Formats: sequence, C-alpha cells, structure tokens
Amino acid sequence: MGHRIITVSREFGSGGREVGKRLAERMGIAYYDREIITAVAQRSGLAEEYIASISERGVSAYYPITFGHTFAHTSAMLDPHMEVMTEQTKLLKSLAQKGDCVIVGRCADVVLRADEPFNLFVYADEESKLKRCRARQSEDEKRLTDAELKRRMAKVDKERARYRALLTDRRWGDVQGYHLCVNTSGWDMHDLVDVLTPLVEAYFSKK
Amino acid sequence: MGHRIITVSREFGSGGREVGKRLAERMGIAYYDREIITAVAQRSGLAEEYIASISERGVSAYYPITFGHTFAHTSAMLDPHMEVMTEQTKLLKSLAQKGDCVIVGRCADVVLRADEPFNLFVYADEESKLKRCRARQSEDEKRLTDAELKRRMAKVDKERARYRALLTDRRWGDVQGYHLCVNTSGWDMHDLVDVLTPLVEAYFSKK
Repeated sequence: MGHRIITVSREFGSGGREVGKRLAERMGIAYYDREIITAVAQRSGLAEEYIASISERGVSAYYPITFGHTFAHTSAMLDPHMEVMTEQTKLLKSLAQKGDCVIVGRCADVVLRADEPFNLFVYADEESKLKRCRARQSEDEKRLTDAELKRRMAKVDKERARYRALLTDRRWGDVQGYHLCVNTSGWDMHDLVDVLTPLVEAYFSKK
Repeated sequence: MGHRIITVSREFGSGGREVGKRLAERMGIAYYDREIITAVAQRSGLAEEYIASISERGVSAYYPITFGHTFAHTSAMLDPHMEVMTEQTKLLKSLAQKGDCVIVGRCADVVLRADEPFNLFVYADEESKLKRCRARQSEDEKRLTDAELKRRMAKVDKERARYRALLTDRRWGDVQGYHLCVNTSGWDMHDLVDVLTPLVEAYFSKK
C-alpha cells in the first residue's frame, strides 16, 4: 500500500481548510496548504504574493487579451504562470512521495491521480459561507455588503474551477471527481472531523 | 427535536438502496422504498406496476406529445400521473410523521424539506455501477452489451432528474441539495455503512 494521501477541494468560505487541518491532526499526518506556496516561491525565485495570486487560478484570468496579441507578449505573460504550475506539480508529487498527508487545494486530486488519493470536496450553503467569511473577514472585507461578499466568494470559486479546467475535463464540484462531498452547514467542525476521520481511515484500511 | 428522517437519492447501480437499507438496520429505524409504491397503489386504486413505472419519472416521459394536443387528451394523460405524485407526497409526509426513518428515492428530500431531513446522495463511477448491475441483472438484461446497459443506466438517472425538476430548481446530483454525497466505488457496503452510521447519528444529535 502506498501513502495515504487525502486531497481537499473546497468552496470558498465552506471551512475546507479547517476540515483538512483537523483531519491531518486527528490522523497524525502532514498537512500542506500555505507551505506549498512558500516552497514554490523558493524553487522558482518568484515572490510568494505573486504565487499566491495565481496558484489556484486559471491562466485566462491573467492573459492580457485587451493589451495585444503579439507572440512575444503572450509568451512573456504565460511563462511565469506555467512555471508556477510546473513547479507546483513537481512539488505536489514530491510531497506525496514523502508520506501520508492532507493537501488542500491546488488540484492535488487531479495532479496526484496516480497516487490514488482520497478526494474530499467540502462545501456549504451560501448563508453558512457568508457567516464564516464575516467571522474571519479583513478590515477591507468589512466594508463589503452581503451581495458584494457573495460575488467575491463566487469569483474565487469560479477561478478555482477555471484552474481545474486546465488540468481535467471533470468539472470542479462534480461529485464524480470525489470520494466524498460533505456539506459543512450547521456542523461544528470538531464534531464533523470526529466522524470523518474513521471514514477516511476505513477507506485506506480496505485498500 | 423532530423525527430523524434520512432521505437517500442515488444513481442507478450505485448501491444506494443497499446503503439506505443497511443504514436503517444499523440505526434501528424504519426503511421505506418499495412499500411506498404498494401504499400509493392501495390509496389510488391504480396498479402497482403502473405506479412503479411513473413513481420517479418526469411527466414529460409519458406526455404523448406526438399523439395530439387537445386539452381533453392532455388532461386525461396527466391526471393519473398527478394523482400518483399527489398521493406519494401525502404518503411521504405521513411516513415522516410516524417516526425516524430512511426513505429511498421519490424526491423525499424535496417533498419533506420542512421536516429537515438528512439528505444523502449515493453515486459511483461508471465501471462500479456496471459491475453492480451485472451482478444482479435479470435474464433480459444479460442480453445487453455494456454500451446498452450504460445507456439504460443513464436513461433511468435522466428520468429521476426530470422527476426532480418538477419539484425543485435544484438539479439532481448537485451537491448543494444534499448533506453528504458518497461514492460507493471500491467500498464494501458493510464497511461503508459502519462509518456512515455514526456520521448521520452525530448530525442529528447536535440539532
């Protein structure tokens, strides 16, 4: 049996990161999220902030279609994006080789397909996501109306879907791409992870 | 706290019925599936076989659009279908009043919304569903090629989706309509229900 790799894809505001982090703690295995950005920055020499901004977004969001169409320009804009994707892919594969782990985001479910990960999709209803965002919002976000915040949430999810579309035909959030899809609405995260942990462990123990 | 109502929606061949049945056994609560058809037959005076044939299908499948468009004809064809849907709705509501239960199919998740059920969606990858269908197929189905069986599976799911569309805008199989979506591919059903039972029980205990 290979390592137990758990990937977590999540709707913005659903608490997917927290589920992933607690699941890793409960299983006593490694957890990768922000660390991926730092490592990609070190490998590529690009700024962490820049990598964070494109790490889970589709190329088209950064393709300056209105600026011009010369080959040189296109290529110059795509290069760093492709470099980040390539470095990220290499890094995910090396993390999966190191040992059991939980990886949040970065389409790890698709990139690590050959490692047969357990793919979890975490989502919630809009009201729950809004509440969660409000509870942890920045000063900047406090000025947003509910409608504006909902639009921002939808935008992040759309960018994640677009990033995923670069790697697979399987639509982001389509159940067929995952082993389990869990709605966090109304759950206390501790309680939820209490019942998810044995489920994930049983999945691997039968393999 | 009201009764614990668990609804199971399922892709054809995914083993959703088995999950529902075992879950009810493990929780020691009632299980309704085929019984619903029998009861609707008794209430409506229509044949069980007829009810089974339309119980989870959209009206349009039986709307004889090519035969004519007179009001009398349309109304005559729609009447028994609507009667079955109405009787089924009444019956589901009365079952939910009786006590804790698991209900498979019939859009119970939508019909019983007010009872705040736990809505489970059971699915599997195509190969697993095909294997499951082959293991329990009728003599008639044995003559089907894989491609034909896949088309039949897809047709049943499409009809379920159409039936659902009569009752709600929320697309059949869209994660947002469910509390949990579980992929049965590769699971032994006993093992799966072993880990699903505490999850469902925890959901209700926190309410």
